[in-house]
Amino acid sequence: MIKHALSITREADFAAWYQAAIAEADMAEESGVRGCMVMRPWGYGIWERMQRLLDDRIKALGYDNCYFPLFIPLSYFEKEAEHVEGFAKEMAVVTHHRLVANGKGGLVPDPEAKLEEPLVVRPTSETVIGTAFARWVQSWRDLPVQINQWANIVRWEMRTRMFLRTTEFLWQEGHAAYATADQARAEAMKALELYRAFAEDCVGLPVVVGEKPEHERFPGADSTFSIEAMMQDGKALQAGTSHYLGTSFAEAQNIRFQNQAGELDHAHTISWGMTTRMIGAMIMVHGDDDGVRVPPRVAPWQVVIVPMLRDTPEDGTIVDYCRALQDDLARQTAMGEAVRVLLDVKPVRAATKRWGWVKKGAPVIVEVGGRDMAGGNVSVLRRDGLYRDDGKLDTSVQPRDEFIGSVAALLESVQQSLYVEARRRLEANINRDVADFAALEAHFTNSGKYPGWVEVQWSKPTGDALKQVEERLKALKLTVRNAPLDAAAADGTCVFTGAPAVERILIGRAY
Amino acid sequence: MIKHALSITREADFAAWYQAAIAEADMAEESGVRGCMVMRPWGYGIWERMQRLLDDRIKALGYDNCYFPLFIPLSYFEKEAEHVEGFAKEMAVVTHHRLVANGKGGLVPDPEAKLEEPLVVRPTSETVIGTAFARWVQSWRDLPVQINQWANIVRWEMRTRMFLRTTEFLWQEGHAAYATADQARAEAMKALELYRAFAEDCVGLPVVVGEKPEHERFPGADSTFSIEAMMQDGKALQAGTSHYLGTSFAEAQNIRFQNQAGELDHAHTISWGMTTRMIGAMIMVHGDDDGVRVPPRVAPWQVVIVPMLRDTPEDGTIVDYCRALQDDLARQTAMGEAVRVLLDVKPVRAATKRWGWVKKGAPVIVEVGGRDMAGGNVSVLRRDGLYRDDGKLDTSVQPRDEFIGSVAALLESVQQSLYVEARRRLEANINRDVADFAALEAHFTNSGKYPGWVEVQWSKPTGDALKQVEERLKALKLTVRNAPLDAAAADGTCVFTGAPAVERILIGRAY
Repeated sequence: MIKHALSITREADFAAWYQAAIAEADMAEESGVRGCMVMRPWGYGIWERMQRLLDDRIKALGYDNCYFPLFIPLSYFEKEAEHVEGFAKEMAVVTHHRLVANGKGGLVPDPEAKLEEPLVVRPTSETVIGTAFARWVQSWRDLPVQINQWANIVRWEMRTRMFLRTTEFLWQEGHAAYATADQARAEAMKALELYRAFAEDCVGLPVVVGEKPEHERFPGADSTFSIEAMMQDGKALQAGTSHYLGTSFAEAQNIRFQNQAGELDHAHTISWGMTTRMIGAMIMVHGDDDGVRVPPRVAPWQVVIVPMLRDTPEDGTIVDYCRALQDDLARQTAMGEAVRVLLDVKPVRAATKRWGWVKKGAPVIVEVGGRDMAGGNVSVLRRDGLYRDDGKLDTSVQPRDEFIGSVAALLESVQQSLYVEARRRLEANINRDVADFAALEAHFTNSGKYPGWVEVQWSKPTGDALKQVEERLKALKLTVRNAPLDAAAADGTCVFTGAPAVERILIGRAY
Repeated sequence: MIKHALSITREADFAAWYQAAIAEADMAEESGVRGCMVMRPWGYGIWERMQRLLDDRIKALGYDNCYFPLFIPLSYFEKEAEHVEGFAKEMAVVTHHRLVANGKGGLVPDPEAKLEEPLVVRPTSETVIGTAFARWVQSWRDLPVQINQWANIVRWEMRTRMFLRTTEFLWQEGHAAYATADQARAEAMKALELYRAFAEDCVGLPVVVGEKPEHERFPGADSTFSIEAMMQDGKALQAGTSHYLGTSFAEAQNIRFQNQAGELDHAHTISWGMTTRMIGAMIMVHGDDDGVRVPPRVAPWQVVIVPMLRDTPEDGTIVDYCRALQDDLARQTAMGEAVRVLLDVKPVRAATKRWGWVKKGAPVIVEVGGRDMAGGNVSVLRRDGLYRDDGKLDTSVQPRDEFIGSVAALLESVQQSLYVEARRRLEANINRDVADFAALEAHFTNSGKYPGWVEVQWSKPTGDALKQVEERLKALKLTVRNAPLDAAAADGTCVFTGAPAVERILIGRAY
């Protein structure tokens, strides 16, 4: 039996495994500040990679980056009632602008420095960006306005979990205003497709693209779309959302323009966001019992070279050999970018280093010992297929030049294999044979520890009927994830009411 | 006489010119949130360029990027007394984590959701990063630790000015811990040299590198070094600082390690930062009466193509010609990067566009009309030398292929000429012939509106004597900027006391 690198398996306790995987990979840690984490180099480096790849795509969509204030005056929130309702419960509020000695060696907020109007630390920026749009937009010639912001966000969370739900997190928020509803809706869908392509092509996360039901919409939105990924415990994780906000924010913020007929119209706005929670999704989809596995496109280092040093005079020659290898590898191009290669020369035992990089999930680990060097070889380990059938490490000894020539294909293969593995798991864990509520209940009661999702048909109830559906699901700890855009047309009856169904929806447990 | 693009000149009112230059370039605007600005695409785009160039250099220095919490518990500040003293007066304090309806249609902080320990919005991160260092550092093998963070910072400012002093600003902060004082000091100097090279080579800002006098040090630091740039009104702007913090933060935060002899030592820490104020410096050093001038290396677009369309059937052909030109230019490499070219096809008159890009300060503006196209030419305007001697625009008509072949050299030349112009101005405005306080006073009274700086000798007083110097300078609205590292050795008497001098210092008015 293989002795894996983590002390706890996914099967034994998925939540504990997740925490261990993050800790052992040195990706993040508790900060000492309630609900806030420290993102360490390997974790933040993955975010930097995601940023770079997303940012290029966002700019290609015609968006410009801007920066808006962290603080939002209370009055901005009071304008959009639904929006307040949705966010008012979890915001950090700045009330003072100075501290003063309390006479006991400590500090307290200075009562003399109380703000006239408290400031909210942004939980999202629709209100402050909409206010800017109102200044910028006068005529149809000023439209569209398409703006993106990379920022930190604060939502006061009671129960936090690293990357998935933290009081402060990092994100990207796209905001745009258009002349017509049709154009705004079409652009909201383009953003959604951008997320799908990014999640699947860059992070290797297969996702289901769909529309959120009414009760799961962004506060104030006309419609909300999401991409949903399935974690290895079968739970869903909403990995990105795009909202068509109609004219409700434009009305609250007075974003009006003179149309071509000379009349004043309200603009139609959209917003869309993706966060550092994507890193949590990456861990929970690709990780294994040896730790994290990072897809090459988002890996800070794609190839890590570990020289097998033994405190002998030969060590210097091995390091030189490795450095030349690093230089040659860094001149290769994989998936459109220069290969990112690290030579790890820290004063640590080679085996400790190897397992360190396994736990961090570097896609390819190359070990070079005296024997490798003598033969002009390198020993290559793929993180996605660590073991042979006999349970030994699947190290492949290759001539160095051959390895250099094939490294681009190797990295593409790792990228692809992680995606395919996750795609198979997703497909295998959606039960489409659930025709009524009893069957639904049975599925989540009898399908073991990690029951996945069901795709069912429903009559898309509204109002009280929808509230009842929500309650019945909540009793089973379930939620409607979305109505997949590519689902087959409804042809049966509603799993909740038996009435004729109008669409198919995914239901599951969620993060 | 030339009619310049801005309605106010630098000579008439430098402060008003600065505001006009920013507004006309659409770089930033007031946000409606007290002391906070909105950075618009051209302004934020310059920051993105600065980030990219700085970040590459920071990583090359061996630093890793991380992310630490926005919020810092009050107790963290209470540990380092000097540090509290320096920052306690200007911090935003979060006291509540929820809002509640006030019964009058508005919202107020929920008294039920008062935080037990108020949180400070970070004014700098020494305390929270030091706390992490204390967890990470146990043995000499864990050193050095070298971390960089890109973040937003809040310092409550009473009088704000865009880019130069805002309640919230963006910056980069480097933090590192070393085993010895010598190593820490040497690394603080490397960071300073990084800033000098970045300012001069990328932003084209000539700077004076030196050590701050005792009373101008970062709160809690053993020594503070700065780069100082001279604005066109002769005022100094501190454009980057690097601090050797000694062991005071390590003692407050318990950053200790077992040294090679097995004893516990405190680490020696350093920190260094550069902010969005660099953009303000760029405007005030390079701008002219036609607006902002952006050095090519930090320009979001280096070449902007303006098709001269006249609503005739020929327009389509001109746009095609421009698009081909754009593609060919984008394949060129200048100063180590692909040339950044924008084709401006917005529905705006060509002359309006041209002057828009002049005011934004795009380094090279290329106009293409029907006649240019027919001759296979382009009309090229350099932003750094806009006019001929006769006051007409210095447009140069060139064969397109010749222009493409020379664009890299052209951009380098613009970069260089902006630097040289600023360097000459700096040199010309430092008066080194000030031997006593009367002469110093006379200089700042009689040298016109923009008197520049003086370099004088002093005896480097401390305690009350230093306080007196500070007061005497303050009466003239002056401060000691720094003691230039490359200044000649002192050989005269102190300008304040007549005592034998020990070093030379720069004195001037400052932002």
